[in-house]
Amino acid sequence: MENKAVIVLANGFEEIEAIVAIDLVRRAKIELVTLGLGGREVVGAHDVPLRADQAFTEFRGGFEALILPGGKPGTRNLGESAELREWIRQAFGQGKLCAAICSAPTVLAKAGILKGRRATCHPSSQDLLEGALYLEEPVVRDGNLITSRGVGTAIPFALEVVRYLKGDELSAHLAKDILLSSP
Amino acid sequence: MENKAVIVLANGFEEIEAIVAIDLVRRAKIELVTLGLGGREVVGAHDVPLRADQAFTEFRGGFEALILPGGKPGTRNLGESAELREWIRQAFGQGKLCAAICSAPTVLAKAGILKGRRATCHPSSQDLLEGALYLEEPVVRDGNLITSRGVGTAIPFALEVVRYLKGDELSAHLAKDILLSSP
Repeated sequence: MENKAVIVLANGFEEIEAIVAIDLVRRAKIELVTLGLGGREVVGAHDVPLRADQAFTEFRGGFEALILPGGKPGTRNLGESAELREWIRQAFGQGKLCAAICSAPTVLAKAGILKGRRATCHPSSQDLLEGALYLEEPVVRDGNLITSRGVGTAIPFALEVVRYLKGDELSAHLAKDILLSSP
Repeated sequence: MENKAVIVLANGFEEIEAIVAIDLVRRAKIELVTLGLGGREVVGAHDVPLRADQAFTEFRGGFEALILPGGKPGTRNLGESAELREWIRQAFGQGKLCAAICSAPTVLAKAGILKGRRATCHPSSQDLLEGALYLEEPVVRDGNLITSRGVGTAIPFALEVVRYLKGDELSAHLAKDILLSSP
């Protein structure tokens, strides 16, 4: 179970935010399972059909990091799942990493875990962070929470998840390996 | 046919490079068709299974931009297709945009269109650019060629494709819209 991550993909997920996390986390040799909310077949916000490794409702394994991409209407679909909210509460309470980007930090807020915590999200969703201390930074880490703003911050977000799970050195190595430079 | 782009996905394609281009080009309201080399079902270099819109061999439509992502062994698979090389030669000769990232510019080189042109690619593939003037820049545009270096330059690469097809203003707007900032 060590270093295992899951990412939950609902229909309408933001493709870049999801794929950047999946790809970079797997490059860091962290086992990552993609879970389709509502079944294995999911379609992104820009019509990219993708087959998840497992359906969300079928997954029984353990994990130590939960990742949520944004997207329209992906985030709304994530937020409507009472089962996912319960997952988030349990995972957070057990000290597991909860990471969300773009509008998906609002799903963490709906699960009630952002109160009094430092967090960021897409500026258009800022009012839905319910009690969090909103920071306008590309990536915000507060304890076992990592939040980020959107497509343009997807790489720094994924690198911070890697840094949390495997340390500074590997994350820095990965950034160098993918030829990351200022745009 | 105006503003229509195609992206060719072979098994082992680099997921971030492909998805960033697909997503951002579609955000720019450019019609984009994903073509699976060897069939509609393709699997990326990091085990992400994706269903392409059409099989490469079945596509009969016109286009004005051809995009190639890198990846291991995706690039090798692209390079082994004589039909794709012929496509590239014809498209280039007709003044259509040929855009490739990471190791995929070597596929353009194999098609013989890079001689004497300014181009870049992943540093590990530099020796395979056959007669091109290699530049170590995130994105290089030379006439109807756009080349780029890898995952870390995927967003600037896609924005340059948008700039080529739809102009500075839309590309700049898109960069702002996705909250692009220095990492």
